[in-house]
Amino acid sequence: MAGLRVRSALLTGANRGIGLGLVKHFLQLPNPPERIFAACRDPKGERAQELQSLASKHPSLVIIPLDVTDPASIQAAAARVTEHLKGSGLNLLINNAGIVKWNSLDTTTREEMSEVYATNTIGPLLVSQAFLPLLKKAAQGSPSSELSCSRAAIINISSIGGSIASESSWDMIQIVSYRCSKAALNMLTKCQSLGYRQHGILCAALHPGWVQTDMGSVSGHTPPLTVDMSVQMMLEVFSKLSEKDSGTLLDWEGKVIPW
Amino acid sequence: MAGLRVRSALLTGANRGIGLGLVKHFLQLPNPPERIFAACRDPKGERAQELQSLASKHPSLVIIPLDVTDPASIQAAAARVTEHLKGSGLNLLINNAGIVKWNSLDTTTREEMSEVYATNTIGPLLVSQAFLPLLKKAAQGSPSSELSCSRAAIINISSIGGSIASESSWDMIQIVSYRCSKAALNMLTKCQSLGYRQHGILCAALHPGWVQTDMGSVSGHTPPLTVDMSVQMMLEVFSKLSEKDSGTLLDWEGKVIPW
Repeated sequence: MAGLRVRSALLTGANRGIGLGLVKHFLQLPNPPERIFAACRDPKGERAQELQSLASKHPSLVIIPLDVTDPASIQAAAARVTEHLKGSGLNLLINNAGIVKWNSLDTTTREEMSEVYATNTIGPLLVSQAFLPLLKKAAQGSPSSELSCSRAAIINISSIGGSIASESSWDMIQIVSYRCSKAALNMLTKCQSLGYRQHGILCAALHPGWVQTDMGSVSGHTPPLTVDMSVQMMLEVFSKLSEKDSGTLLDWEGKVIPW
Repeated sequence: MAGLRVRSALLTGANRGIGLGLVKHFLQLPNPPERIFAACRDPKGERAQELQSLASKHPSLVIIPLDVTDPASIQAAAARVTEHLKGSGLNLLINNAGIVKWNSLDTTTREEMSEVYATNTIGPLLVSQAFLPLLKKAAQGSPSSELSCSRAAIINISSIGGSIASESSWDMIQIVSYRCSKAALNMLTKCQSLGYRQHGILCAALHPGWVQTDMGSVSGHTPPLTVDMSVQMMLEVFSKLSEKDSGTLLDWEGKVIPW
């Protein structure tokens, strides 16, 4: 992990599951970020207690209220982070907030499709737009001209469930609204990589594996990966990302997943 | 085109562009369908005059009011078509209705993302769900056990713009909301192919090419294909589709486009 030297990082959906795991591992890095912005919808709520407790012990950890489906909330969060950074840029934006609905192809509704798309696809677009000035600033201020997470990057937490080529677990879970939203998120990642390369920003989608979280738990099946295992390996992947990885979908071990 | 013998077909967005072109070419087939259901949002409107004029000359052509973003409208259309078919099934459903918004990565809004997704992705899902009983009936009643458009098929009109692998025309047009919606539509097509194979229904996505329509016309650029050229070649592709093509994205010449 020696390669990952991020001065500042922001994660959405940071109060639980993979988001919370990433926060913890960032805090434990040999060279931890000076500022970790842990964004979540309801920082005062019951489900953010562990994050609050962490923040009380780590001054570098700043909790930011952020609802990725609400443009006003996104703008307010960007303003707050800008203030905290006091003229510095943001190195790493991790769009991790996501939801899933357990319906089948035949029972998926319009409302469910819209809701899942709003959080999983539109959210990352809007959040990236809002934090783009800070990401650009980090890229410009970097001593390196190479693309990397240490310089400036957008990481979209996607899923192999969004890989059209893979047919992953279809017989077990159909989750059409989720699959469509993640395929669209993969497309967004590709568009971001094409649009933001000129600004020195690396953009990649990451599949964290099938992880023991609320979202990953399907009745009767235990996911093979713990949050710690997934997150540790993802941070290892972050540390190695370069130009050639921008615009790709990688798994937690750094293997390319076909679209 | 000898291979395409469709007793009944329904197209959405049938009042103009590629939809209207498909209607005209269906009417001119050596073995035209007994019933062509031309669905459009506003059959009484100015933009449906050519379709109305065609219907007045061809008794096999039935115009159906259908707004693909409105579940009640979709249900009403399915009921109407069921009545017309008098106990027969529907062989071919072509989800053609689609919209585009000309914004860039930086200027795409939440509203635009939602609106384009509602028409281009959620619409085909809901329309396919509503017409599924009729498609199943056609598949069951067919003398053949092979998948084909003549038996029962869902064709989603997609785009190479939805191919994450292709980076098609990025420098000319970003249209992120459109690209994301079509990548999601490609995923939906794959899901439909996996879910509906057991019912004998072929599901494929088709890229009609860059066509001289209202949608295809970008200022300063003339698309290389006329509607007639695109539609004629797509009908040729329809006639040849089989098991191996279900769950793929093909272009107007039948070539596979990577996801």
